Amino acid sequence: MAEPTQIRISREGAVMIITLYRPEAMNAFTAVMKDEMIAALDEADNDDSIRAVIVTGQGERAFCAGADLSAGAETFDYDKRVESDSPVQPDGSINWSHDLVRDSGGELSLRIFAAKKPVIGAINGAAVGIGVTMQMPMDMRLASTKARFGFVFARRGIVPEAASSWFLPRLVGLPTALDWCMSGRIFGADEALAAGLVQSVHEPEDLLPAALALAEKLTADSAPVSIAATRHMLWRMAGASHPNVAHRWDSRMIFARGRMGDAKEGVVSFLEKRPAKFTDSVAKDYPVFEPFDIDPGYE
Amino acid sequence: MAEPTQIRISREGAVMIITLYRPEAMNAFTAVMKDEMIAALDEADNDDSIRAVIVTGQGERAFCAGADLSAGAETFDYDKRVESDSPVQPDGSINWSHDLVRDSGGELSLRIFAAKKPVIGAINGAAVGIGVTMQMPMDMRLASTKARFGFVFARRGIVPEAASSWFLPRLVGLPTALDWCMSGRIFGADEALAAGLVQSVHEPEDLLPAALALAEKLTADSAPVSIAATRHMLWRMAGASHPNVAHRWDSRMIFARGRMGDAKEGVVSFLEKRPAKFTDSVAKDYPVFEPFDIDPGYE
Amino acid sequence: MAEPTQIRISREGAVMIITLYRPEAMNAFTAVMKDEMIAALDEADNDDSIRAVIVTGQGERAFCAGADLSAGAETFDYDKRVESDSPVQPDGSINWSHDLVRDSGGELSLRIFAAKKPVIGAINGAAVGIGVTMQMPMDMRLASTKARFGFVFARRGIVPEAASSWFLPRLVGLPTALDWCMSGRIFGADEALAAGLVQSVHEPEDLLPAALALAEKLTADSAPVSIAATRHMLWRMAGASHPNVAHRWDSRMIFARGRMGDAKEGVVSFLEKRPAKFTDSVAKDYPVFEPFDIDPGYE
Repeated sequence: MAEPTQIRISREGAVMIITLYRPEAMNAFTAVMKDEMIAALDEADNDDSIRAVIVTGQGERAFCAGADLSAGAETFDYDKRVESDSPVQPDGSINWSHDLVRDSGGELSLRIFAAKKPVIGAINGAAVGIGVTMQMPMDMRLASTKARFGFVFARRGIVPEAASSWFLPRLVGLPTALDWCMSGRIFGADEALAAGLVQSVHEPEDLLPAALALAEKLTADSAPVSIAATRHMLWRMAGASHPNVAHRWDSRMIFARGRMGDAKEGVVSFLEKRPAKFTDSVAKDYPVFEPFDIDPGYE
Repeated sequence: MAEPTQIRISREGAVMIITLYRPEAMNAFTAVMKDEMIAALDEADNDDSIRAVIVTGQGERAFCAGADLSAGAETFDYDKRVESDSPVQPDGSINWSHDLVRDSGGELSLRIFAAKKPVIGAINGAAVGIGVTMQMPMDMRLASTKARFGFVFARRGIVPEAASSWFLPRLVGLPTALDWCMSGRIFGADEALAAGLVQSVHEPEDLLPAALALAEKLTADSAPVSIAATRHMLWRMAGASHPNVAHRWDSRMIFARGRMGDAKEGVVSFLEKRPAKFTDSVAKDYPVFEPFDIDPGYE
Repeated sequence: MAEPTQIRISREGAVMIITLYRPEAMNAFTAVMKDEMIAALDEADNDDSIRAVIVTGQGERAFCAGADLSAGAETFDYDKRVESDSPVQPDGSINWSHDLVRDSGGELSLRIFAAKKPVIGAINGAAVGIGVTMQMPMDMRLASTKARFGFVFARRGIVPEAASSWFLPRLVGLPTALDWCMSGRIFGADEALAAGLVQSVHEPEDLLPAALALAEKLTADSAPVSIAATRHMLWRMAGASHPNVAHRWDSRMIFARGRMGDAKEGVVSFLEKRPAKFTDSVAKDYPVFEPFDIDPGYE
């Protein structure tokens, strides 16, 4: 992978730390940052030495201040950015299937949603717009006392993106989600904690250590392939129409996992009252079911 | 619109106040009241000078005491009300597709669900049966200390209606929803607040001022079209099977809004550190996507 | 029904008490126990003298310690248990539609999900693996101070089953569900209460009396058929894509119930200010709609 320019990637034991890194611009989000984050998540999924991912922002001021607004009034007018093959037809109608009609924040959200390692947000400062909606598919969010949050879209004349309309009500309930997204107001770490948006609040210097400790707690005693499958199942079934869908999924997954080394080691180590040593590989052994389509896809 | 007879409509600044008005009958619900409420919501959606809607009840005793029971034992036996073309066939079987097999409370709930303005419940007194289920699709509910609530359906031999089985577990969780709907018991504002059914409790004289202040807070700094779209997205995606569905929706909506005046004004006003002046019209400019069907419809 | 061997069935007034009964094995779960529990639930649904079901475990030590591990390393390797007609094809590929690829915990969960009487968990001790996931579709869970819980699957190299990926996030939210299921850690009654997994905690000797009092509270004043329908509607609509689905369901159910004796008695008794005497039978009168398929089925 080419050296990223708008994020930094570091390692702390078995944890990959992705740091949003545009300190001169409050780590504002760009298409380049999106691509670099997705590449980092690809790397994490394919590297069995990585057990978890932490996402944080450079500096004390901002986690991510939202979309880069340097294009001014044209920031969200994507059609203005193309010379030809515009989604806007000569007669003024819009080709809604055009590739350009696709929110880049959502591409990132869906990639985090599909991650095979736990993803933890360490929210160190201001998190606004895509800076907060990208956190929704992370498994947990820890905040610094300096963190602030804002679903400011309605104040900018646009709407919540990054698939946050799916995630946010599932995290904090509809009345709170509606309040935050209609008013667009900025709020602090205490309100985020009370509403369940973040799971704990820390002094700035304690934030990253707490996130690392959480990563350790989540992964230390569990089989990596089981964690990947658990993550997918819980997130995906949060939207499933009926427990039968989960039953189909977990029946297959239990059968597949039951034949693998980890399941034997898991039981035997338990019976022998010793720590388990799991050896199945997320990169190589993750069970795949075909055909099994419960995903509506991007159309 | 003809002068309504079972509700009163008033204005307070940019807020439409709908008052359920059958004080002689504890504001009990009728088909006339339903039609008048739907007409009022139509008016609110089509009038750009209205930014929010508050629903309350006349008097201190009741918000709405439920379905009008003046038909006695036949109250819920809809088939008894028709002379001919009954859903009940000569052989005793039922034509489930018949128009009469349609719950009128649900017609109201779905209309509130589809509202383009925030809808706030100001629950001033007893709210029982349809008097409480009609509150479910409102964005927030404020209660007077005199409010009482009862999902009494099982005590009347019927079942929860107005699509409340979809809404209530999403608002208060399944165990609480099951408790309230199985037992049918009456409970007060404090229990409603603790469970998350209402967002705040007020002295009776403070209820309407608090609802008006909330309406102001939700709408003051936000673009009206963005609020309408936000409302639809959050409510609709609460039931969507996968974040991809939200991604499709918000991609289109961001693209559509990004080309409109509000999105330009939103960014420019922010960069110029001045209040935004949004001019796009909910009545005339609300973006529509076709074909885009994720609605199972009423069959 | 043949006398069960791994559970005990008793009656306390109108309540059926199912006691998981393998005290020598911490009430560990087996295929026999599953079949006996399903048979007991069938009996409860078909006996109008039973108004509610309580599930508890024998002794003070365990509610249910999870799957019986006496098969050791082969415990979850179901393919090893068949002589012929294996889901595993000669070429090593898997026939995912094979009957053997079906989680037995999920069969129990889905049966509880479909119960026509309220099901209350009285969690008297350790509840691990299927011992906790089988609780998810119960309407409420009461815990003894001695109860402990563990979604230990990832520590055994497998994944959450019994359709718990559908249920658990709806009960306690995604961050908590992910924490418990990834880490696989054991936690106590206090944490379960704080997260909403259980609704109350009791001294061991008070647990069953509290569960019996709750069963009485839920059912005393309500029509049995209404409770059955309410239970189905709330659970099913928790996964429905749109309130329209609920509207279709409750429209039909209100119409059907409105014609029955209970609905007349419910209104008349209320107007006469006397207790209702409901006589419709769950076993014989439960309304069925055909065709009306919103169930994806087990494929």
